[in-house]
Amino acid sequence: MHSFSDLSALFNERFSEKQFPATPENLYQATDYFLQIGGKRIRPVLCLLGNELFDEIRPDAWSAATAIELFHNFTLIHDDIMDKAPLRRGVQTVHTRFGDNTALLAGDVMMIQAYHWLSKVSGSYQTSLLQLFNRTATEVCEGQQLDMDFETRVEVAHDEYLNMIKLKTSVLLACALQMGAIIGGAGQRNQELVYSFGLQLGLAFQVQDDYLDAFGDPEKFGKQVGGDILANKKTFLLIHALQCASEKDKQTLLLLLRSNPADKVEKVLAIYKNCGVDQWALSLKQQLLDKALENLEQVAVLSARKVPLRELASYLIQREV
Amino acid sequence: MHSFSDLSALFNERFSEKQFPATPENLYQATDYFLQIGGKRIRPVLCLLGNELFDEIRPDAWSAATAIELFHNFTLIHDDIMDKAPLRRGVQTVHTRFGDNTALLAGDVMMIQAYHWLSKVSGSYQTSLLQLFNRTATEVCEGQQLDMDFETRVEVAHDEYLNMIKLKTSVLLACALQMGAIIGGAGQRNQELVYSFGLQLGLAFQVQDDYLDAFGDPEKFGKQVGGDILANKKTFLLIHALQCASEKDKQTLLLLLRSNPADKVEKVLAIYKNCGVDQWALSLKQQLLDKALENLEQVAVLSARKVPLRELASYLIQREV
Repeated sequence: MHSFSDLSALFNERFSEKQFPATPENLYQATDYFLQIGGKRIRPVLCLLGNELFDEIRPDAWSAATAIELFHNFTLIHDDIMDKAPLRRGVQTVHTRFGDNTALLAGDVMMIQAYHWLSKVSGSYQTSLLQLFNRTATEVCEGQQLDMDFETRVEVAHDEYLNMIKLKTSVLLACALQMGAIIGGAGQRNQELVYSFGLQLGLAFQVQDDYLDAFGDPEKFGKQVGGDILANKKTFLLIHALQCASEKDKQTLLLLLRSNPADKVEKVLAIYKNCGVDQWALSLKQQLLDKALENLEQVAVLSARKVPLRELASYLIQREV
Repeated sequence: MHSFSDLSALFNERFSEKQFPATPENLYQATDYFLQIGGKRIRPVLCLLGNELFDEIRPDAWSAATAIELFHNFTLIHDDIMDKAPLRRGVQTVHTRFGDNTALLAGDVMMIQAYHWLSKVSGSYQTSLLQLFNRTATEVCEGQQLDMDFETRVEVAHDEYLNMIKLKTSVLLACALQMGAIIGGAGQRNQELVYSFGLQLGLAFQVQDDYLDAFGDPEKFGKQVGGDILANKKTFLLIHALQCASEKDKQTLLLLLRSNPADKVEKVLAIYKNCGVDQWALSLKQQLLDKALENLEQVAVLSARKVPLRELASYLIQREV
């Protein structure tokens, strides 16, 4: 069995091989540029770990993992166009560097390349993988649409936000795990359990992300604290604060959402603390993590096989950065 | 056996059933809007005809045909964004009506829906279909990139343009036919022949399209004659004229490409006629059509089975509009 970091290194080694041909140069320099930026490769490793929970890692799992990582990169390229984001991971986004049109097309061709890897899967489960992948891919697009819809709304209910995050972020983690489990020969019940594990883990991760943006240690967090606040982004924190703050704080918060005073971040954080949003978020994160781990515990394999996934959950969720 | 128009009607009937769920409304009103605009449905019918060349139409062929039509619509939505086109088939494009972001996402989800239909194919040939479809989809993106690349270049060689059209337009027609043939149980040689038939037919169609834009009867053509000339679009005609015109005419043509006098269309057409581009294009179209039909003749099935495809070729290529 392998740890997350072992598999991450092994995956990166394979993934760094050229995915695309050389020409048309204007198209493939954009795809190559984005792939070499790198990333944590969490999703493909989840696929490999999902496989290894049940069996030794099979060649098909590497193909499925590659498909998932390519699909994830496709979503990033297109999301960056939609968000007009100038930077990702500290470097220029594809559309900033190569223009919107080429970025659009680079995303398209990357999604098709994901299906190219799925078509290489040899086992009898190819259709199951394809159907799970398609359903998930559609959900990710739906999540992105909801995210955009929410930008123009003042109030969004907690459950609506939870559902958006589930679609936009969690289902792909869950899908990665289940695809690995399918390739590993898992039965239906075990597949559902690893899927739920991934889903809850993804939600916990987003709660943490929202928390760290407001309350993280700027030095460890690696990006500007309060970025979500300055961008008026809907987060678990903002949505909860609008629900539980005193009427006076709520009105102040709504006013702050329509203005940009120099001390906006401090003022919003003060309201968050007034109504205990920080503690609430930590507790929500823990609940979601517990649910995730409960699902993992119920998977009918030897407990020892679950160690790498438990470790990964701790690494992703307990991290201070 | 069915004619093109029979199958077009039958396909439209099935295809008009709802492809997408109701929510998120902002996403799926965009996809539904575009699909109900309609179209000639040439590609899915080619898939059905490719099947019927070898066997009765199987349920899988309807799935593959639907996948192809969805993929084609995805390319139109994204191409319209890239071209900043306000209208398609006389009505607002998706991005004009719903904004660039939703159009981008509507295209994405439509491509995924194409793969959803491919995943419904039941036969043992699912992997072959998937691989052919993926290769073709990648080529279509490459063709679009080359088309954009050519916009910023003054001169493009005939073979470069031919290759771009092959990728951007012809391979999808060829793929549709071959997918039908695969489902119909055709052997490798017959598959290659119907693929080549589709490829040449697509090129002939584009030559005709370029020709009609310059020399078509405005009343029958249904759109402004000279649109390509006003847009300085690379066409078979322009590329050939730049190669064969007298030095004086060539210089005038290059000057016209950098300016927009009121009589631009007339002047360019006069140069086209001076060097016989009109006759050259008609002859090139005929050569390509002959090549297409030669490939069809070689397909090892009874000649009577080829009647609908021969008729379709005549309908597409001999049309005056």
